[in-house]
Amino acid sequence: MTYQFTRALTEMTGTATREIFKLLNRPEIVSFAGGLPASGCLPAAHIQEATEAIFSDPAGVKRCLQYGITEGYPELREHILALILDAGIGGMGIDNILITSGGSQALDLTCKVLLNPGDTVLVEDPTFLGFLATVKSYGAQAVGVRAAAGGLDLEDLEAKIRRHRPKLLYVIPNFSNPTGKTYSAENRRALAELALRYETVILEDDPYGRLRFAGEALPAIAHFDACGLAVYCSSFSKTVSPGLRLGFAAGSQEVIRKMGIAKQGADLHSSNLVQMIIKTYLDKGYFYPDIEKSLPRYRERKEAMIRALAKYMPGSFKHTDPDGGLFIWGEFDAPLNTVEIFHEALGRNAAYINGTAFYAENQRAESAGKPVRGLNTLRLNYSNEHPDRIETGIKALGGLFHEKLAALAPPRP
Amino acid sequence: MTYQFTRALTEMTGTATREIFKLLNRPEIVSFAGGLPASGCLPAAHIQEATEAIFSDPAGVKRCLQYGITEGYPELREHILALILDAGIGGMGIDNILITSGGSQALDLTCKVLLNPGDTVLVEDPTFLGFLATVKSYGAQAVGVRAAAGGLDLEDLEAKIRRHRPKLLYVIPNFSNPTGKTYSAENRRALAELALRYETVILEDDPYGRLRFAGEALPAIAHFDACGLAVYCSSFSKTVSPGLRLGFAAGSQEVIRKMGIAKQGADLHSSNLVQMIIKTYLDKGYFYPDIEKSLPRYRERKEAMIRALAKYMPGSFKHTDPDGGLFIWGEFDAPLNTVEIFHEALGRNAAYINGTAFYAENQRAESAGKPVRGLNTLRLNYSNEHPDRIETGIKALGGLFHEKLAALAPPRP
Repeated sequence: MTYQFTRALTEMTGTATREIFKLLNRPEIVSFAGGLPASGCLPAAHIQEATEAIFSDPAGVKRCLQYGITEGYPELREHILALILDAGIGGMGIDNILITSGGSQALDLTCKVLLNPGDTVLVEDPTFLGFLATVKSYGAQAVGVRAAAGGLDLEDLEAKIRRHRPKLLYVIPNFSNPTGKTYSAENRRALAELALRYETVILEDDPYGRLRFAGEALPAIAHFDACGLAVYCSSFSKTVSPGLRLGFAAGSQEVIRKMGIAKQGADLHSSNLVQMIIKTYLDKGYFYPDIEKSLPRYRERKEAMIRALAKYMPGSFKHTDPDGGLFIWGEFDAPLNTVEIFHEALGRNAAYINGTAFYAENQRAESAGKPVRGLNTLRLNYSNEHPDRIETGIKALGGLFHEKLAALAPPRP
Repeated sequence: MTYQFTRALTEMTGTATREIFKLLNRPEIVSFAGGLPASGCLPAAHIQEATEAIFSDPAGVKRCLQYGITEGYPELREHILALILDAGIGGMGIDNILITSGGSQALDLTCKVLLNPGDTVLVEDPTFLGFLATVKSYGAQAVGVRAAAGGLDLEDLEAKIRRHRPKLLYVIPNFSNPTGKTYSAENRRALAELALRYETVILEDDPYGRLRFAGEALPAIAHFDACGLAVYCSSFSKTVSPGLRLGFAAGSQEVIRKMGIAKQGADLHSSNLVQMIIKTYLDKGYFYPDIEKSLPRYRERKEAMIRALAKYMPGSFKHTDPDGGLFIWGEFDAPLNTVEIFHEALGRNAAYINGTAFYAENQRAESAGKPVRGLNTLRLNYSNEHPDRIETGIKALGGLFHEKLAALAPPRP
C-alpha cells in the first residue's frame, strides 16, 4: 500500500524537537536541547490540592467527566481576562478567549483559520521551529525577517510585507525562542502600527513572559492594537505544568469564533478535568506566588550558564544574556558547523540544538541544494538542569568546540 | 479589520452540535439532541481512585507534569493493543498506536495527513455531522454512499470509488451515528476487499462498539484488512468519560507516524495526567466490569424510548431499533419538515436533531439553492435521559408531530 499523503505532510518527517525528546531519557546526558521548564518548580503539591478539591465536589466531578463546550469553562476564561490585563491587554470579554490544548494548539488553530496553501507567514529569523512545522503543515511558507537588537528590523519587515502580502506575522516578543531576546516597547508599537497599515494579523506568542527574573515587564504588542489585529497566545506550560496541556488564545471575537469552529473539529474541547484543575489552582491564588518562588531558580541557572560560558567557551563564541525565559542563543565568529559536531557532543554527554533548525528558509534551501543559514549557531536551554550539571555540560561542549576550532585553523608553522 | 479566513473556514459557521450543547443547560428541556453517554454510568469513583493513586507517587506526578512524547505513554498504548484485540485487530505493536485528544482528534489527524483541498471522501448517507465538518475544514468534499440494510450498498460504493477516486472511505460500522445501525460481517469483509482493490484508506470510527446491550459483537473492518488500509479510531469517551478527552488511532506504522507528526503541530501531546488516569484505571481492571454494569441502563433507556415511540408517534413514523450505542433514527413516511418545526419542539421542551444535518451533500445543495435530503428525518439520543423523562419528551414530540401531520393533510370535507 502506498499512501497518498498531503503535499505538505509528505515533506514532513518530524522536527528536531521530536527527536530530542527521545534523548532526554538518558540520564548521563546533560541536555541543553529541550525547552522544559524546571521540573522542581512545577507546583505539584498545589496541583494535587486543586485536583482533590475537584473530586470532593460530586457535582463538579460530574461536570468534568461529561462533554463540555468548545470555548472552555467560562470561569477559567474570566481568570484569563485578568491574567492578560497584566500584559496591558484590556477591553476584552470571555468571548474574546478560547481555551486550547496547550499553547501549540492556539498557534495551530490561528494557522488553520487563516492559511491557505501557498500563503506566506513572516517570522523573525531565527524563530520557534515548532511554528515553522505548523506553517508547513498547512502548505504555507514562512519567510524570515531580519532581527534587530530591540526586535524586528522594521525596514526589512515593511519591505517583506509589501513583497509577500503575508497573512500573518508571527513573533515571540518576550524571551524569544530560540534567542532569549525581548522586543523594546518602541518596536512593539511599531509592529502594531505596521500591521494596521497593511492589515496583517499579528500572531503574538507569549509562553515565557511570566518567567522574568530581571528588568521590567513590557506591554504586549496586543496592547498597542486597537483594531483586533493581534491574536495573543499563551499557556500554563511554563508556569504551572506543560504535561497538563492547557493554553489559550485572546483576540477579536470574529477570529476567536472561527478558531472555536476549527477547534470543534480538532478535539471538540480541551480536557474538562485539566481546565478545572487550572481554574481551581487560580481560584486558590497560587499562580503568582508560585511563579515568584520559581524565579530565583531560573535566574540561578541562567547565571550558572553565563559563568560557565565565560569560563569554558572559545573567544569566538558570542551569546545572548536574557532577563527571563529558558534560552540562550550562541554564535561562533568562525565557521564551526554545529550540525556536523552534534553527535560528537552527545558522545561527550552534552546536548544542544543546532541553530539551523530555527531559520525559516533553511528547509527549502536544503531541498534546493542551496546553503543554509546559521550553521555556526546553537540554542542552549538552561532551565531544566542543576547549576553543577550546567557547568559539567558547558565544560564538555567548550572542550569540544576548542578542539574543533583548533582543527579549523591549525597553528602556522 | 476584515479577516481573510481560509476558503474552507469562511464557509463554516459552526455545526448543529455546537449550538445544541448550549441548549442542554436548560433543565426543563428533555434533550434527545446530544450524543452524551449516560452521566450516571461514568465511573467517577474509580476515576477518582486512579487519580489519587497517581498523586500518591511523586515520581509519577513529576512525569505527568512535564512534557511527554507525542505518541503517548507506551504503557497506555500496550493497554490499547489488548483492547483492540477484542475487535479482532491483532498483529500490531505500540508503534501502530497513536494516543489522541479524544476520538475527534484521531479523525481530524487522519484527514490532516491525507486530504488535500479538492479531495473526495466517501461516507454513508447519513453520517456523523462532526466528521462532515472536519472534511470541509480541509477543503475536501464528502460524497454520500447509499445505505443498505447490513451496511453500505456495495454497488453504489464501487461506482462512487470509480467515479471519485476518494482518498478515504469513512464508516461507523457499530451503532452508527446517526442511525444506530450495525454493518454485517459480510459487508465489513466486502468493504475491506473493495478498499484493497482500489487502494482506498478506510477510516473506521468505532466510538460506540463497547456499548452493545444485545446481540453478538462483530470483528472490526480492520480485522479483514491485511494491507494496512484501515485506520481504526476509538476513544474512552463513551465508556469512561468524554470530558477527559482521550482517544486513539490504530493503523499501519507509516500512517501512524505521519499522524504523529501532524499531532506534534496540533497539540504536541495529549494531557499526561489524563493518559495516566486512563492507564491506571485500566491497570486496576475497572474497564470491563464498569461497562458491564452500565449496559442495563443503556438497554433500559433504549427500550423506554422504543415503547414511547410506539405509544405516541404517528403511524407514518418509522425508526431503527439498535442493539447498542446512543441513537435511534426516525423517518416520516410523509412530507413533515423536521427543520421547520424544531423550534416548536423546543417550545414544548423537547429537542432532537433534524436529520438533514447528517447528509454529506446537503450543505452544498443548500448553497446552490437545490433541495436537501432527509427533511423528513431526525435523530433521537436516548442515553442521557431517565426513562420517565424519555416518555415525557417523546409524548411532547408525538403530540407536535400529530398536529403537524394533521395540518398537512386536512380531513376531506
